[in-house]
Amino acid sequence: MQKNPLIHAILKEIKLTQEEILVFDRFWTEKIIEKGAYLLRNGDVCRSDNYVISGLLKAFYINAENGNEEILYFAIDDWWATDIDSFSKQKPSLYNIQAVEQTSVLQISYHSFHQLLREIPALERYFRIILEGYLGTLQKRLVDNQVYDAESRYYRFLETYPTIASKVPQYLIASYLGVSAEFISRIRKKNKLS
Amino acid sequence: MQKNPLIHAILKEIKLTQEEILVFDRFWTEKIIEKGAYLLRNGDVCRSDNYVISGLLKAFYINAENGNEEILYFAIDDWWATDIDSFSKQKPSLYNIQAVEQTSVLQISYHSFHQLLREIPALERYFRIILEGYLGTLQKRLVDNQVYDAESRYYRFLETYPTIASKVPQYLIASYLGVSAEFISRIRKKNKLS
Repeated sequence: MQKNPLIHAILKEIKLTQEEILVFDRFWTEKIIEKGAYLLRNGDVCRSDNYVISGLLKAFYINAENGNEEILYFAIDDWWATDIDSFSKQKPSLYNIQAVEQTSVLQISYHSFHQLLREIPALERYFRIILEGYLGTLQKRLVDNQVYDAESRYYRFLETYPTIASKVPQYLIASYLGVSAEFISRIRKKNKLS
Repeated sequence: MQKNPLIHAILKEIKLTQEEILVFDRFWTEKIIEKGAYLLRNGDVCRSDNYVISGLLKAFYINAENGNEEILYFAIDDWWATDIDSFSKQKPSLYNIQAVEQTSVLQISYHSFHQLLREIPALERYFRIILEGYLGTLQKRLVDNQVYDAESRYYRFLETYPTIASKVPQYLIASYLGVSAEFISRIRKKNKLS
């Protein structure tokens, strides 16, 4: 087992030499975010790229019309939790990232991230592949939101993200899907999932 | 001026040797899509990555509840028009891409794309940067949709995408913003933009 769990994820996509792995390791710092603490606040610049080792984060913003918390995404083990627009352009973030439970992340600063890519250009490929995956997921979410009704979206969510579904409180899943917690209780009851 | 306009876009982000530029050129084929013709149909696999030289494409899907055409994005000169999830996994697409006016694109097949990245690894960096931009734009759109009211979204769209706004018929902008064409006419009249 490598010291850095991110290395495992990376070696699934690209090859690195032992020397590159050692260099890579030096760039990352582990940080613990206590339950309820913020990794990023709306309006602040996202200073680090964040890889989740373990725990659960929610990315959200406040709906200006009704004051509701709207969930943009969840991040669990082996997910990234970075406002990529804020991080890549070093401009204020549009949303918040907060720990739902105690969470451990690996962090790299903006400056170090670019230094790392200069030292190990092979990583460009890894990040290209990861970004393709996230972009695909987000496009799918936009389409799903309008093509499927709320009940189908709920079951598609359970099917696509079983690990997240088992960790995340039901009221947060409801917020992610844009429905009320009561609505989910109702369809679970109807389909005897409760 | 290079033969391949995509090279200009790439050389803004990364350096390539003259030899690499020649290799790069060989991988791309120009294709004309007539007004109303489809570049991609929902359910088909997206076989090529598509860079728009000139013209206007709309990416859309049909809302199952009301039969409405929902616009996912527009693509004009110097934009990519690819269902990245379908292309990168070679699985059926969730949406359609159709020419609003005659459009010229540069295409590369899935197989050739990976061959190209093997021959010119420096391109990984270019695509990583491009994907960061698209992912940031899409996250911003998801947030904007719920944080801003329809009128603000319309003016933010005009400000962010002046070229698209000047080319795209008003009823398609309305569909992109999730409002009625009448709504846009009304606010333009109110603010004397018409």
